[in-house]
Amino acid sequence: MRDKVTVCEVGPRDGLQMAHATMPTAAKISWIGAIAAAGLHEIEVGSFVPARLVPQMADTGDVVTATRSLRGVTIIALAPNLRGAQDAAAAGAHRITVPVSVSEGHSRANTRRSTDEQVSEVGRIAAWLGEHHPGIELEAAASTAFGCSIDGVILEARVVAVAAALVAAGAHKVALADTVGYAHPVQIHSVTRAVRAAIGDRLEGLHLHDTMGLGLANALAGIEEGIRSFDAALAGLGGCPFAPGASGNIVTEDLVFMLESMGFDTGIDLARLVAARDLLASGLPGEPLHGAVARAGIPKTYQAAA
Amino acid sequence: MRDKVTVCEVGPRDGLQMAHATMPTAAKISWIGAIAAAGLHEIEVGSFVPARLVPQMADTGDVVTATRSLRGVTIIALAPNLRGAQDAAAAGAHRITVPVSVSEGHSRANTRRSTDEQVSEVGRIAAWLGEHHPGIELEAAASTAFGCSIDGVILEARVVAVAAALVAAGAHKVALADTVGYAHPVQIHSVTRAVRAAIGDRLEGLHLHDTMGLGLANALAGIEEGIRSFDAALAGLGGCPFAPGASGNIVTEDLVFMLESMGFDTGIDLARLVAARDLLASGLPGEPLHGAVARAGIPKTYQAAA
Repeated sequence: MRDKVTVCEVGPRDGLQMAHATMPTAAKISWIGAIAAAGLHEIEVGSFVPARLVPQMADTGDVVTATRSLRGVTIIALAPNLRGAQDAAAAGAHRITVPVSVSEGHSRANTRRSTDEQVSEVGRIAAWLGEHHPGIELEAAASTAFGCSIDGVILEARVVAVAAALVAAGAHKVALADTVGYAHPVQIHSVTRAVRAAIGDRLEGLHLHDTMGLGLANALAGIEEGIRSFDAALAGLGGCPFAPGASGNIVTEDLVFMLESMGFDTGIDLARLVAARDLLASGLPGEPLHGAVARAGIPKTYQAAA
Repeated sequence: MRDKVTVCEVGPRDGLQMAHATMPTAAKISWIGAIAAAGLHEIEVGSFVPARLVPQMADTGDVVTATRSLRGVTIIALAPNLRGAQDAAAAGAHRITVPVSVSEGHSRANTRRSTDEQVSEVGRIAAWLGEHHPGIELEAAASTAFGCSIDGVILEARVVAVAAALVAAGAHKVALADTVGYAHPVQIHSVTRAVRAAIGDRLEGLHLHDTMGLGLANALAGIEEGIRSFDAALAGLGGCPFAPGASGNIVTEDLVFMLESMGFDTGIDLARLVAARDLLASGLPGEPLHGAVARAGIPKTYQAAA
């Protein structure tokens, strides 16, 4: 039995919200279907945010409704507030992720609330879900947990305090997000250990960006700490608003290549996953696609799960 | 006191030999000077191979002679045979690296000799250097130690046997090279341990490529195994002849960023190193340059050695 690792595809949300153009709804649904068919069983398909702010996400309700019955797939939607969470629940999302910035600067820039106010919003969402949709998972994403382009260094004690507050507020799970891609492996080890000491298995996974090229090294550090859930985006879609020209999330297919090569079981068919890039490319012409596996091809030494 | 790590710049050799054009000699010398000024104290500046096969390296003798008096810098030249080693010694190289492919297929393609024949060549070079140039270091690079695009999987026992044979033949140091970039972190751990058990501190370092995007994750695995010497190329120069479009060696500036962020002392000024890309770009117009740090900029959270 190989150790299982969950790879959660966030390209349709974290990738597309940063894309230059808006992918048509039908193309999103086809692309998400191809990702699911490659074996990914967690997909973050969009966010419930005002369409005037993020027009790429205006059809998230339709996308959730069209994909929620994909067999064996957890459909995730991001919601920054109670209103968004209510929309996500109405559309049929299986899990709702609420971003909460550890850094005050990023929190105000991203949600126009302080970190404490956003933790309180998680509490309101938890209470509402508990009453109306007890079957929906609530995950809080602790953004800028490893550094912030606005506030700079983030103290570990601060990350621990926010993670603990999120659990106290009712989040079922907490993910640590390297939103701007400043993390390094020693920091991943240290922060992950400290947060787990505080909230135990409520620490779900890592959301890593490849801004500085350390994304997979950071994922390796997470694996070494026992983390078994990682967000990633096909073709490293998305970029980073704070680092022009930088690639975005860690590349799903490169992460899967690393994990399977190391002997972990992701349940993902790498060739089919790479092929799903075609639907991304055709649905979003001109968007730069990243990724080493797609560029170099899957080597003959690669042995995926039988 | 921070733990020291040596980063050996191999772009002028492993990078330029794969470049589309030939960098003029004066531009090479200026570029190497800028790399040295950024704090790198090991630079592989070229290879002594027939100019009709690798015209980009035809001026290696002049480059060695012009750079060998750079203060505090070990000037390294690659030589595939005794004739090349004699030329390297005559030019004044401080260290000579001899490539020996662990895989028979790559050995024959690269040197037209079997692995055993190339190990014997290392023995001839060691004997000649011992007699005529006892001050020159002799390093053997065990190529394709983690996989081969021709022969596929490389057995660990085979790597150990070749490494031991190289030491027995007189190599002062042995580096393990992931020539085609197929290595993964678990393999780095395992092979590094096995080779060290056989040859101890004669195992000098790792030469990693980023073909599959795992270069820095593999470097991290090497660090965890106690490896303190890594080859890298500025801007990831070079590509891989066996993986069209792939990036080449791991990116020097990204590696330095990772190591310094993790608390290691490379002695390198990252900003000056990134600036040295300008001389590369002007000396080799049109060559694609890779690298996350250069693309995204050095983040405000970065703290290099004082």
